[in-house]
Amino acid sequence: MTFSRHSNPQQQDTAFVVDTRRSPQARLHPVSLSNIQLTDTFWQPRRDINQTVTLPQQYELSARTGRLDNFRRAAGDSSIPFRGIFYNDSDVYKWVEAASWTLAQAPEARLEQQLDEVIALIASAQDDDGYLNTYFTFERQAERWSNLTDLHELYCAGHLLQAAVAHHRATGKTSLLDVATRIADNIASVFGPQGRPGTCGHPEIELALIELARETGEPRYLQQAQFFIDQRGQKPPVLNGSPYCQDHLPVREQQEAVGHAVRALYLYAGVTDAYLETGEAALDHAQEVLWQNLTERKTYVTGGVGSRWEGEAFGENYELPNERAYTETCAAIASVMWNWRLLQARPEARFTDVIEQTLYNGVIAGSSLDGKLYFYQNPLADRGKHRRQPWFDTACCPPNIARLLASLPGYFYSTSQEGIWLHLYASNTAQIPLTSGETITIEQQTNYPWDEEIRIKLQMQEAQDFTLFVRIPAWATGAQIQVNQQAVEGLAVKPGTYVQLKRTWQPGDEITIVLPLEVRLLESHPHVTSNRGRVAIVRGPLVYCLEQADHGSIDVWDIVLSGQTQWEAQAQKQLLGGIVTLHTQAYEQVQEEWQGQLYRPHNQGKQQRYRPVQLTAIPYYAWANREAGPMQVWLPLDEHIQAHPNSR
Amino acid sequence: MTFSRHSNPQQQDTAFVVDTRRSPQARLHPVSLSNIQLTDTFWQPRRDINQTVTLPQQYELSARTGRLDNFRRAAGDSSIPFRGIFYNDSDVYKWVEAASWTLAQAPEARLEQQLDEVIALIASAQDDDGYLNTYFTFERQAERWSNLTDLHELYCAGHLLQAAVAHHRATGKTSLLDVATRIADNIASVFGPQGRPGTCGHPEIELALIELARETGEPRYLQQAQFFIDQRGQKPPVLNGSPYCQDHLPVREQQEAVGHAVRALYLYAGVTDAYLETGEAALDHAQEVLWQNLTERKTYVTGGVGSRWEGEAFGENYELPNERAYTETCAAIASVMWNWRLLQARPEARFTDVIEQTLYNGVIAGSSLDGKLYFYQNPLADRGKHRRQPWFDTACCPPNIARLLASLPGYFYSTSQEGIWLHLYASNTAQIPLTSGETITIEQQTNYPWDEEIRIKLQMQEAQDFTLFVRIPAWATGAQIQVNQQAVEGLAVKPGTYVQLKRTWQPGDEITIVLPLEVRLLESHPHVTSNRGRVAIVRGPLVYCLEQADHGSIDVWDIVLSGQTQWEAQAQKQLLGGIVTLHTQAYEQVQEEWQGQLYRPHNQGKQQRYRPVQLTAIPYYAWANREAGPMQVWLPLDEHIQAHPNSR
Repeated sequence: MTFSRHSNPQQQDTAFVVDTRRSPQARLHPVSLSNIQLTDTFWQPRRDINQTVTLPQQYELSARTGRLDNFRRAAGDSSIPFRGIFYNDSDVYKWVEAASWTLAQAPEARLEQQLDEVIALIASAQDDDGYLNTYFTFERQAERWSNLTDLHELYCAGHLLQAAVAHHRATGKTSLLDVATRIADNIASVFGPQGRPGTCGHPEIELALIELARETGEPRYLQQAQFFIDQRGQKPPVLNGSPYCQDHLPVREQQEAVGHAVRALYLYAGVTDAYLETGEAALDHAQEVLWQNLTERKTYVTGGVGSRWEGEAFGENYELPNERAYTETCAAIASVMWNWRLLQARPEARFTDVIEQTLYNGVIAGSSLDGKLYFYQNPLADRGKHRRQPWFDTACCPPNIARLLASLPGYFYSTSQEGIWLHLYASNTAQIPLTSGETITIEQQTNYPWDEEIRIKLQMQEAQDFTLFVRIPAWATGAQIQVNQQAVEGLAVKPGTYVQLKRTWQPGDEITIVLPLEVRLLESHPHVTSNRGRVAIVRGPLVYCLEQADHGSIDVWDIVLSGQTQWEAQAQKQLLGGIVTLHTQAYEQVQEEWQGQLYRPHNQGKQQRYRPVQLTAIPYYAWANREAGPMQVWLPLDEHIQAHPNSR
Repeated sequence: MTFSRHSNPQQQDTAFVVDTRRSPQARLHPVSLSNIQLTDTFWQPRRDINQTVTLPQQYELSARTGRLDNFRRAAGDSSIPFRGIFYNDSDVYKWVEAASWTLAQAPEARLEQQLDEVIALIASAQDDDGYLNTYFTFERQAERWSNLTDLHELYCAGHLLQAAVAHHRATGKTSLLDVATRIADNIASVFGPQGRPGTCGHPEIELALIELARETGEPRYLQQAQFFIDQRGQKPPVLNGSPYCQDHLPVREQQEAVGHAVRALYLYAGVTDAYLETGEAALDHAQEVLWQNLTERKTYVTGGVGSRWEGEAFGENYELPNERAYTETCAAIASVMWNWRLLQARPEARFTDVIEQTLYNGVIAGSSLDGKLYFYQNPLADRGKHRRQPWFDTACCPPNIARLLASLPGYFYSTSQEGIWLHLYASNTAQIPLTSGETITIEQQTNYPWDEEIRIKLQMQEAQDFTLFVRIPAWATGAQIQVNQQAVEGLAVKPGTYVQLKRTWQPGDEITIVLPLEVRLLESHPHVTSNRGRVAIVRGPLVYCLEQADHGSIDVWDIVLSGQTQWEAQAQKQLLGGIVTLHTQAYEQVQEEWQGQLYRPHNQGKQQRYRPVQLTAIPYYAWANREAGPMQVWLPLDEHIQAHPNSR
């Protein structure tokens, strides 16, 4: 790998979510998010709220909870008490990252000034030797690096590095990048083949160091990341040997996604970052095996991952409980981060499908529609007690959502030697620089995910030869592509692939993509015991749920689908920020007979009685934005309800 | 309440599990377990193993893990380091209790000597002021009573009191009772209306103090227990106000079983003990409401309770996951303890039904058949990874099983003014002293729970007028009772009640009880989402399961019952200590089509395919005593398998 320092620090078309432009194994190259202006009604309103509501609120909460004062203290004012938990610096760093990506697209003087002040505050807290962690100051200074397993010291540094890289890519400023290289150099002076063994109980430093290597052109940061990756699974262990922090086996021998889900996914993202630079086959094998285990055994239909409250961990294969799904918002975000990196190495639609599934369901359910409240856990069924909160003592999720939303346009397109890749669909205008040096302007017009047609218009100076890679989601049976209102001869539009449109494109050419939005009912592998006899309602990338607010006095946990369902989709612009609701005739399973019983003999003489009921399903992400009440994603389905004419 | 010290300390017919003889609200009085000799093939072999294998092994493990050395240290040898966790004393106390109950029935010089030595060791560790806890010695002495919420200090004292009461009742010796009264007095000197507020984060002291009051005739220990009960749910809280330790509400206002299950059930047992002495209506109301919530919303079909690993806690209503059932063995035992106390106050078969259901399933599953290995958690489904262990760092469960098995005969009979109560069924010979002063010898002959006939023979000096109260379990539809081979005219044998046989009994009278052991399939309330479309196989008091060891290469998670099942029961004397297996024709749900998929469109073109398979069910308690493999209690049932002639 060869790196070169970016020549022009002021340019802002370097706002790459992950900069794989010079990564030897990257088949895709990023497009700066500053080149993409979302104009849609799904994501851009969320991003506007992120900028105008969420970022100011999170700044305010960081200040009020002592997170900023902790830096003032570390800068030398020992009269300020340390407040909060030892990993609280990382929340500030994620806010910095979110603010940086925001400024890459939407310059705002007040935010820029606030960001500069926070960065100055962070810089002021750095020691002369480069060390920076506000918890390990004054009386705790002697404890530095003494408990890597539990105290998130390198994790916090990793988020600082990520924030600094984002800030540099987004603004061209080096103020935080300088802080980052100094702490990275401090870390390298402590840990390494010639220094101490050790790595962090909570991965994050690995991917961050590799991004720092990409940003600075310094291969030593990549080597440092490789060292940390290789420290896991040693005998005797340098951590505690526990699967909880993925220290049970060397990374290259890990075959099952186990332990704390966010830790695992940040680690896997770091592993893929390392693979993108080194091409090491053993890392490639491990990431593929782990990805298959995760997606084929341990992923909720929402894209959420991490089934257990106990240890915030993955469960066993097929262990996917609904009410007690932990599915931390951060784990969904980490899954997006990892799949994006995998996609760079191997541009296959299966990774993008996971990204889209996770974004539309598992990630954005983590935030209220007004951008002020958050879920830490995202269950798929509830009795009405699980409600979003404005903040948490462990506040990892809120700024994680903020940084993802701020950087979201960076996930829409890639380029490669062959041309342009379309990953996600929402109205936008994008300037895509081809490797040839030409820039193609793409205008995407669609009301996706509500409507099924996507129109792409290409603008350029003159005709260009390149391939347009159009992602057809795996669910999009019957998808069609037209160019200039004409079918493309011999083109197979296969779901779950990138369809290649290779031609000489003319200025003004139009591509029309139709992704049929039939309502689909999904069933689970039979070993997912919690979903037996149940189906999930899905339309396009959106998983739906039933919420009590739409069903009056009928408990949505008692609603059963019959074998034949005719669905009606209704656009409701005023409801829950504008959604499409789904409607059908269903049945209420009458419960009176159970009074006071928990168990009873099966088929006790009489058939289950049902009452017809009109069902309304809303997108899962939109739940818990109205009055509290039961919610359910996986609905019982009884093929034989229709066969009981006496059921009413 | 009036108490009087027992007059004859040498008598051993005072080995009462709970001594309610002078409790004003007790409608039942206990029978000393020394009066009951089990001669059956179900319980007595377990009790023999308990005495010959388990107690020696637990002594050895207590020694090896430092639990006994901790007392040597506390006795003054500061060169011995404290080992283990702050609550480890309680394991020794439970061993003392188990050994005491054992000696009440089966004198054994070696065990008695070992017990006396352990008691001497415990006594040697007591401070002059009565304080005794080996953790809070030397450098930690200043921390005594400083953290009642977390450090189990009163909990350990409670187990000492229970052990001392058991030892006194079982052996007549006062050696440990003297230690107990001194620590109880020490506690009373610290906590109380005139002293400090506070109570223990882990209940246990409450029921223990009331039993000490009963044993010593000292009402002040009852008052101390009441003080501790009343400390919960104060505003501001004396603990932490958390439901985890039942401090969220005053006990009298608690309506839902929440928080740590063992803590809750020990507290409820203490509440019922208090009610038995005081008759306070508010306590009676609370215990009834809590019991209904627990049994109608939060109890597994095995009698196990406490659904969540997170916090070892009850879940929400109907939250009863199978693979991730926590169902701590100690919680099942605590449920037996509480229901036994409730039964004393209100002799209704519903409480005994819970006791029997829990004993035969949730409790004894906690131990291996050889008495050497233990489950802490008792899931109702597993993939083969959950295996019993010889010991735990937190070793509450092993000696808890030991003390329950040792005291088990004490749960078989009660007396009341009206006569004799038969609670449990297993061959035994019992001497039951009537309140009139006469002693009735009962010979119970049965092969229950494997066979359905129970024969009771009464022996006495001369004819006696009294009522025999015969428990008919709620599941025993079609139960019959005969006296001297004759039906009893006008007798209604109603399941779920104590049938009253009131007459002048003659020496040699025989009662025959038939409890039909039809195989029953149970279904769960529809809000138990994990059991939807599933049934549990139950025969008599035993819940059955499928274990991999009986099914070759067929995954028992893929076995489905059809709508019509004909069951065959086979007595297998050589299998798993002697069991009855259940057999039927079932179906294997063929899984090949799912390769690599976690979700797929429902009814994807073809019907589910089934292969016929011979099913073998074993009692749940016997699982995990052979090679590891999948296990399942709740089996899918498909009414319509038979309707698919092409299914093979």
